[in-house]
Amino acid sequence: EVVLELARAVNPKPLNGKQVLLTAGPTFEAIDPVRGITNRSSGKMGYALAQAAWLMGANVNLVSGPTALPAPYGARMFNVQSARQMHAAVFNQIEQIDLFLGVAAVADYGIKNPSTQKQKKQNAEPAGLHMEFELNPDILAEVGKLASERSQPLTVVGFAAETENLDEYAQQKLMNKKAHFIVGNLAQDALGADLTELTVYSKTSKPERL
Amino acid sequence: EVVLELARAVNPKPLNGKQVLLTAGPTFEAIDPVRGITNRSSGKMGYALAQAAWLMGANVNLVSGPTALPAPYGARMFNVQSARQMHAAVFNQIEQIDLFLGVAAVADYGIKNPSTQKQKKQNAEPAGLHMEFELNPDILAEVGKLASERSQPLTVVGFAAETENLDEYAQQKLMNKKAHFIVGNLAQDALGADLTELTVYSKTSKPERL
Repeated sequence: EVVLELARAVNPKPLNGKQVLLTAGPTFEAIDPVRGITNRSSGKMGYALAQAAWLMGANVNLVSGPTALPAPYGARMFNVQSARQMHAAVFNQIEQIDLFLGVAAVADYGIKNPSTQKQKKQNAEPAGLHMEFELNPDILAEVGKLASERSQPLTVVGFAAETENLDEYAQQKLMNKKAHFIVGNLAQDALGADLTELTVYSKTSKPERL
Repeated sequence: EVVLELARAVNPKPLNGKQVLLTAGPTFEAIDPVRGITNRSSGKMGYALAQAAWLMGANVNLVSGPTALPAPYGARMFNVQSARQMHAAVFNQIEQIDLFLGVAAVADYGIKNPSTQKQKKQNAEPAGLHMEFELNPDILAEVGKLASERSQPLTVVGFAAETENLDEYAQQKLMNKKAHFIVGNLAQDALGADLTELTVYSKTSKPERL
């Protein structure tokens, strides 16, 4: 931590005093008290970006789904499970935010009525066979809409992890979510990995591979 | 590791030379390349028992679902995702095993035809709404059956994490799975925790709270 404090002290601080909000990791949509639907996101990218933002001088707020990672040094943590909880944690503080990075892999659908007791196999119906799904709020699209409407500037960066048609899906996301940037990668290479190939999409310039 | 080697050297070794097989952690049943159904098991209990068995002189084989834990020192690791993979890893080696501890939280049901590409929200059908479930093999019951039939002794220990009716469910499990012991705990207290209250059930003696 002393090393990080030192690194921050000597680092140029392009984000000095800026309020940065990130989401990271997977969400966990409960089926019953023990089971749930999640995804393979490890949270590494979001946590690394949170640490980098802090080193660049930002005040960093990190809304994180369940991960096995240590909190980035200097970041204020908000630990959540479901997409709805993540949405609430984001909109509790979005008014003060200058830069939003939606890195979390947020579930599109939640489970309508999670069971309050663990579902047993000997019950006639297999656990989850009658799961009803409900659409979760689209956090990135709502933040993008807010940014397009409010007077105080808010830069919105989304992430797209796809298994195919990355360029097409990322360009769509740029438009549909009113994001300033979409950072895309191929999920089969990236999920859980320490290194990954990224492409940055924006409305005003050509896709840039990093 | 030197400390562990030393501890093992001076430890009494009731399991000296025994072949012990454990399963630990959750399983992950893929819906598509990024999403899946899992549970809140951290793997801590299975990993701790694997380490303890090694300290007691056993040869330890650990079949583990996805966890964030370091491999127990001295254990041979078999990393798997789904219940079917866990089943295969167990039955690949069960012939040589003297003691089986089924600690993993194994999914009762798998997804019949996981999508090979990430399912997109803009498709008319929400991801997973048409998931078809199929019954997974019951690893503990199959090991219990094998133990009851084969001549070479095989001790079978199962685990039950329940949210209610623990005594009843654990006694049922003892009978249905032909296990020698069932170790029960309440999931709401136990999952992810470092300490938990356990009860040991066996056919021949009264439940014993630890």
